[in-house]
Amino acid sequence: MPTLADIVTELESRYDPRWAESWDAVGLVCGDPAAEVRKILFAVDPVAVVAEEALDWGADLVVTHHPLYLRGTTSVAATTSKGRLIQTLIKNDIGLFTAHTNADVADPGVSDALARAVGLTGPLVPLSPAADDPRRGLGRVGSLPEPVSLAEFTRQAARGLPATAGGLRVAGDPDRAVQRIAVSGGSGDSLLGTARAAGVDVFLTADLRHHPASEFMENSGGPALIDAAHWATEWPWLADAAHHLASASAARGITVETRVSETVTDAWNTTAKCEDFT
Amino acid sequence: MPTLADIVTELESRYDPRWAESWDAVGLVCGDPAAEVRKILFAVDPVAVVAEEALDWGADLVVTHHPLYLRGTTSVAATTSKGRLIQTLIKNDIGLFTAHTNADVADPGVSDALARAVGLTGPLVPLSPAADDPRRGLGRVGSLPEPVSLAEFTRQAARGLPATAGGLRVAGDPDRAVQRIAVSGGSGDSLLGTARAAGVDVFLTADLRHHPASEFMENSGGPALIDAAHWATEWPWLADAAHHLASASAARGITVETRVSETVTDAWNTTAKCEDFT
Amino acid sequence: MPTLADIVTELESRYDPRWAESWDAVGLVCGDPAAEVRKILFAVDPVAVVAEEALDWGADLVVTHHPLYLRGTTSVAATTSKGRLIQTLIKNDIGLFTAHTNADVADPGVSDALARAVGLTGPLVPLSPAADDPRRGLGRVGSLPEPVSLAEFTRQAARGLPATAGGLRVAGDPDRAVQRIAVSGGSGDSLLGTARAAGVDVFLTADLRHHPASEFMENSGGPALIDAAHWATEWPWLADAAHHLASASAARGITVETRVSETVTDAWNTTAKCEDFT
Amino acid sequence: MPTLADIVTELESRYDPRWAESWDAVGLVCGDPAAEVRKILFAVDPVAVVAEEALDWGADLVVTHHPLYLRGTTSVAATTSKGRLIQTLIKNDIGLFTAHTNADVADPGVSDALARAVGLTGPLVPLSPAADDPRRGLGRVGSLPEPVSLAEFTRQAARGLPATAGGLRVAGDPDRAVQRIAVSGGSGDSLLGTARAAGVDVFLTADLRHHPASEFMENSGGPALIDAAHWATEWPWLADAAHHLASASAARGITVETRVSETVTDAWNTTAKCEDFT
Amino acid sequence: MPTLADIVTELESRYDPRWAESWDAVGLVCGDPAAEVRKILFAVDPVAVVAEEALDWGADLVVTHHPLYLRGTTSVAATTSKGRLIQTLIKNDIGLFTAHTNADVADPGVSDALARAVGLTGPLVPLSPAADDPRRGLGRVGSLPEPVSLAEFTRQAARGLPATAGGLRVAGDPDRAVQRIAVSGGSGDSLLGTARAAGVDVFLTADLRHHPASEFMENSGGPALIDAAHWATEWPWLADAAHHLASASAARGITVETRVSETVTDAWNTTAKCEDFT
Amino acid sequence: MPTLADIVTELESRYDPRWAESWDAVGLVCGDPAAEVRKILFAVDPVAVVAEEALDWGADLVVTHHPLYLRGTTSVAATTSKGRLIQTLIKNDIGLFTAHTNADVADPGVSDALARAVGLTGPLVPLSPAADDPRRGLGRVGSLPEPVSLAEFTRQAARGLPATAGGLRVAGDPDRAVQRIAVSGGSGDSLLGTARAAGVDVFLTADLRHHPASEFMENSGGPALIDAAHWATEWPWLADAAHHLASASAARGITVETRVSETVTDAWNTTAKCEDFT
Repeated sequence: MPTLADIVTELESRYDPRWAESWDAVGLVCGDPAAEVRKILFAVDPVAVVAEEALDWGADLVVTHHPLYLRGTTSVAATTSKGRLIQTLIKNDIGLFTAHTNADVADPGVSDALARAVGLTGPLVPLSPAADDPRRGLGRVGSLPEPVSLAEFTRQAARGLPATAGGLRVAGDPDRAVQRIAVSGGSGDSLLGTARAAGVDVFLTADLRHHPASEFMENSGGPALIDAAHWATEWPWLADAAHHLASASAARGITVETRVSETVTDAWNTTAKCEDFT
Repeated sequence: MPTLADIVTELESRYDPRWAESWDAVGLVCGDPAAEVRKILFAVDPVAVVAEEALDWGADLVVTHHPLYLRGTTSVAATTSKGRLIQTLIKNDIGLFTAHTNADVADPGVSDALARAVGLTGPLVPLSPAADDPRRGLGRVGSLPEPVSLAEFTRQAARGLPATAGGLRVAGDPDRAVQRIAVSGGSGDSLLGTARAAGVDVFLTADLRHHPASEFMENSGGPALIDAAHWATEWPWLADAAHHLASASAARGITVETRVSETVTDAWNTTAKCEDFT
Repeated sequence: MPTLADIVTELESRYDPRWAESWDAVGLVCGDPAAEVRKILFAVDPVAVVAEEALDWGADLVVTHHPLYLRGTTSVAATTSKGRLIQTLIKNDIGLFTAHTNADVADPGVSDALARAVGLTGPLVPLSPAADDPRRGLGRVGSLPEPVSLAEFTRQAARGLPATAGGLRVAGDPDRAVQRIAVSGGSGDSLLGTARAAGVDVFLTADLRHHPASEFMENSGGPALIDAAHWATEWPWLADAAHHLASASAARGITVETRVSETVTDAWNTTAKCEDFT
Repeated sequence: MPTLADIVTELESRYDPRWAESWDAVGLVCGDPAAEVRKILFAVDPVAVVAEEALDWGADLVVTHHPLYLRGTTSVAATTSKGRLIQTLIKNDIGLFTAHTNADVADPGVSDALARAVGLTGPLVPLSPAADDPRRGLGRVGSLPEPVSLAEFTRQAARGLPATAGGLRVAGDPDRAVQRIAVSGGSGDSLLGTARAAGVDVFLTADLRHHPASEFMENSGGPALIDAAHWATEWPWLADAAHHLASASAARGITVETRVSETVTDAWNTTAKCEDFT
Repeated sequence: MPTLADIVTELESRYDPRWAESWDAVGLVCGDPAAEVRKILFAVDPVAVVAEEALDWGADLVVTHHPLYLRGTTSVAATTSKGRLIQTLIKNDIGLFTAHTNADVADPGVSDALARAVGLTGPLVPLSPAADDPRRGLGRVGSLPEPVSLAEFTRQAARGLPATAGGLRVAGDPDRAVQRIAVSGGSGDSLLGTARAAGVDVFLTADLRHHPASEFMENSGGPALIDAAHWATEWPWLADAAHHLASASAARGITVETRVSETVTDAWNTTAKCEDFT
Repeated sequence: MPTLADIVTELESRYDPRWAESWDAVGLVCGDPAAEVRKILFAVDPVAVVAEEALDWGADLVVTHHPLYLRGTTSVAATTSKGRLIQTLIKNDIGLFTAHTNADVADPGVSDALARAVGLTGPLVPLSPAADDPRRGLGRVGSLPEPVSLAEFTRQAARGLPATAGGLRVAGDPDRAVQRIAVSGGSGDSLLGTARAAGVDVFLTADLRHHPASEFMENSGGPALIDAAHWATEWPWLADAAHHLASASAARGITVETRVSETVTDAWNTTAKCEDFT
């Protein structure tokens, strides 16, 4: 049976920790490298419901996209939800591993899975290529087989992404013809200018706030915007990462069991519509 | 007829520029203090559709909540949407005045109007009181006349706020009884900890992102969250500010005509629901 | 039986975490506040031999002077000695609590115990009083009952401190008469100027390096210096803290068993003398 | 007739905005890129008397060396002299364009014109060459046809520069023979060390203050210094820039009319001599 | 005979080193506190010609307004003019003492002497009062006995100040009536806004550069400006400081001989007028 | 007879000042480049006893490893021990020259001499090679002819280094076999990680403090540590530098007399052992 160290080696060969941003915190968060690992759960967020799912299923390792401690901590006491998570994982011999911005910029990475989920076909190129290797980078730009209306592409994207309370929010003329599409899993504020410069028809991402989004739309001639739940844009990557790990391990004669968590860890559970002025 | 300088004096007596945050940019953005002012349009955002509305209506002054240039500019050339706005306003003798964080912390201010719009009754106190005068401050805490379910309060808030594509997003148990409510117009990320410390049942604000919102909900026992459109949370204040200006002016024997823009300047115009896993 | 939360409350009533330096990391490092605590081990350093001692003795809590993570960590995986310590402690239900600079400045604190250990009698006052309460502060100044030679005081200090490989190093005329003495547990570089200004005859501390010490001695007329092992200067405090906790708990009808670790965690285990020039 | 955008393109092909210092603010300050431009006024400073000259002459564009807003502004209201200038220019359809440190380092640039004005002949090389292209850079070094006394060169420089109240101030032995000369338009404090290292006989610049100038002269063996009015050292460049624009435009079949402002915008209008000790 | 330590004590009782700016370097620069002092030379700048004058006269101490090393040095080797000065002074047993920004803000201080030199009568108050004692501060504001034209006041100031090559430069209408005058010895850029706010008719100072001065004059309605040589504005203080030291010493029965250097250490030795356009 | 400038040139050809760290202060501290130099004293520290030795011996120049003013000073008055040193040296025409981090990284440099002193034979390579020339760098790694116990190597090192009160402190199993050794003269805290990465058996250096040393030893599998007096680790270099200077000068037909100071300038003069617990 493989050890945790073996699995970490395998994951880091695909999601090299040196690719992570300098402010990021990736890699093994808890667990003993010598422990044996048979069952691996993939999830977006390292939160209590995911730990419960891991416990129930008997997982030896949880792989998440988001770090538990993005900024360093000096305490893991069970006085916070994060400390309780650490206590639970350690006491139950479950490791925690994070692939965050190193998975974002991998090839294939988080935005490749997102691009495929919303129906982009053909080759995908990074929206913001990495300086040292332009095949990697943040976001992806791809195309639809033929132009469709923004409304039609929105319906297609909605069909491809997992359901959340908020769904998709769209800024742009629904009748506009779109074909060339940029996507970026997670918060996309910082890529708005890059998406405009890339000359795409749509930029689909998450966590866009009023000021960046409205300033972007105020300067006419740029892409339409689609804002999805942060969680929903990163979830498609889990299956890709799980599949890769299982097959790469199999190629070495190692059997691991993987599972993608379907628990929605988006904060919002319901919505309501406001009143028109009339 | 009053001059622009007179109107600025009146507005700044209610929204003292010294109350603004150090990073903010409030006050007169363009216009000649000696110009005469008769018609004043109130709007949330200084954008092209608002300028057109001002032109059509014959406004002499536009009062907005958001600054045009939050960070300084070295050019107002008509090569950007902001420069075009300045050119349009100056060429048509329309002034632009901003009351932003000084209106947020005024008494009454932006969050008082929001609190009333979502149905809070009785006294309102600042969520984060100003150091130098605790009657002023960010956000407001108030109460409902009697406890209702979170679902019921959400419906009531939705009825009180102007319609936007995204409406409201809610995090929390819909059946939870709620009575003590905190609200804060605009982006509320930075007040999440304060809202928890205040022990309220709900915190209604805007522009909450995945990480702050989901970490907040992960630590159980805190308030439910309601996230509205940034624009919708600040719009209720416009009528209050317009009304005050008109009546304060009338008390000095000065007649000004005010109008609140009903143009929705939220970026999002449509939404779509994503697919369930099943 | 008391909970960990009870013990933390008791310890923090004597070593208030608000007294700690801004760069410090004090308080509970791991453990569940709801766990029951019966046996408490006190030690200077949170290291593997101390964890083994805790395990062997059946401790529920280890109280150390030094933080485990002075700078924050984003991983407690068992890939480092610190992560292994955390894994060991959590798996064996042993909490870890740190009182560092808050214990240094407490009244009585780390340097009071050191002062008594080296034979100072009568009242002790802080060498560098805290701004908000001059009864607290870094270091202590006290006196000997009557003047003795520096050589004699050095012998007395050596008798009062636990043995380490390096013992004491002394700078100053052995025949100099000394009576007024400053001591500071742990690294004392930053207090050299304060000790000179205080006009004492000797400053006893630890971890003095060549440049600060030789520049200090180069300016004549100041105190003699005695440099002890960092560990040895802080060890006397453990008994004081353990005694206080036991008696304060007893006063509330709570029985806890305390023990002071006698394991030397100074790095150096042997010494050698170098050759004279002759 | 050319548009403002055409003229900007022409000016920026000679004074590339990428050459400007990172702290500088160059390019179009106000105006509409689509406006037609026939008459262009060149001046050192964007001040009220220059705007009046532009209005009187019917200029469509003012090109200045100094930025209006070197640091960004959040208001162009007519409550400051700069805001009044913007209002005047926009209301009268006059654009404002700045070429500052990008003109300083251009080839030919501001200091080439200065060098010729004070009588340097033959080739000119940058005093502080640009890292990416040594033909460009700050200041110029050139030569006189034959050595003359410092007094003689001072008279020659005075004849070549436009009159200001303060004229030239000279530090150095009037009888010293000089031939190799460095010049730098505008404030030259930061180039004093470079001028010394270049081994020139004279360094002519502006805005030298007591401490840099007297420390420079205190270290013997370096160049003599000549300090002129900041305005006077940059004024010669205006004719060169105007001439270039007109001829480059003509070469494209475009006729523009240019004019160099002769209004002195140096602050000082009179002088007085102080008393000797005797 | 007094020691250098006695003289330092006397000087620092009038020019307290704690009043100096945090970036300043005041007090004793070289010399032995135990040395005897009989003859003291006062000068603005610590430069070679001043050291020669001290040697020729047989001075034991030089008191200057400007620091030798404003920023710290790690070498006093005779490889620079400053190192040569130190070597000369030490080898000839001459001390060097500086009173800089502590003399600026003293009462009376540098600007009091300047104010009297240009003919202000009656009480003088600081232009920018010190926070801890409003009787001290930078600059002085005083009045003329009756209003005169700016031209007349300029002539009067020129008569009162020692001659330098550049004399005075004046910005403002020569016929303007002036009575309330602010003066500040040395570089006055940073006090321009304060002078405007003080509502004076003239601000006389030194080292004004093009941008601050011309922006100041561009905003109409403020004071006229007079720019003198930095050296000339501080020279009047020397006699005041010398007189005080001699009389305070005499009051203690100590005889010291003082002398004010008349050597002009302004950098500029000649001037020239430029050509008019005509 | 050579001038001081000649000697500086010779020393800097071997210890290039450009190799020094950016925070360091190397080169000539006082002295006149034109002075003649016949006798040169080499010492580790620029302190009073060394200056006395220089005076007694009639030295013209003192070469030290440590800078007098690592941070810049604004005063060399005889009010501090450093100022008194400068006064003494200048008044007696003795220059002071420092080769510090430029000597550390030279080839051969400070750690080469240390390596030979403790008995390393064969080739030495830098522990932390300089980026621009890997033959230079901090520390040295070398080998013993055959493996010996740590206890035996400690005795050998003690025989090779000059005596100080504290001697050597050792961390590690005395029976451990060691052969590959890293040494670094002076404070070695910052090289601990490098020494571990180099895979050596022992790291001998100075001024190690409790936290770095005990954390280092807590992570098992690394080198043993030997901590010597800072002064003792740098003293062996003096003879090497003196010998080089004399022979390089002789090769140019110049005779200089050199001497290595044997005065111990380590701060500690006596030691004492503490009590065991028993």
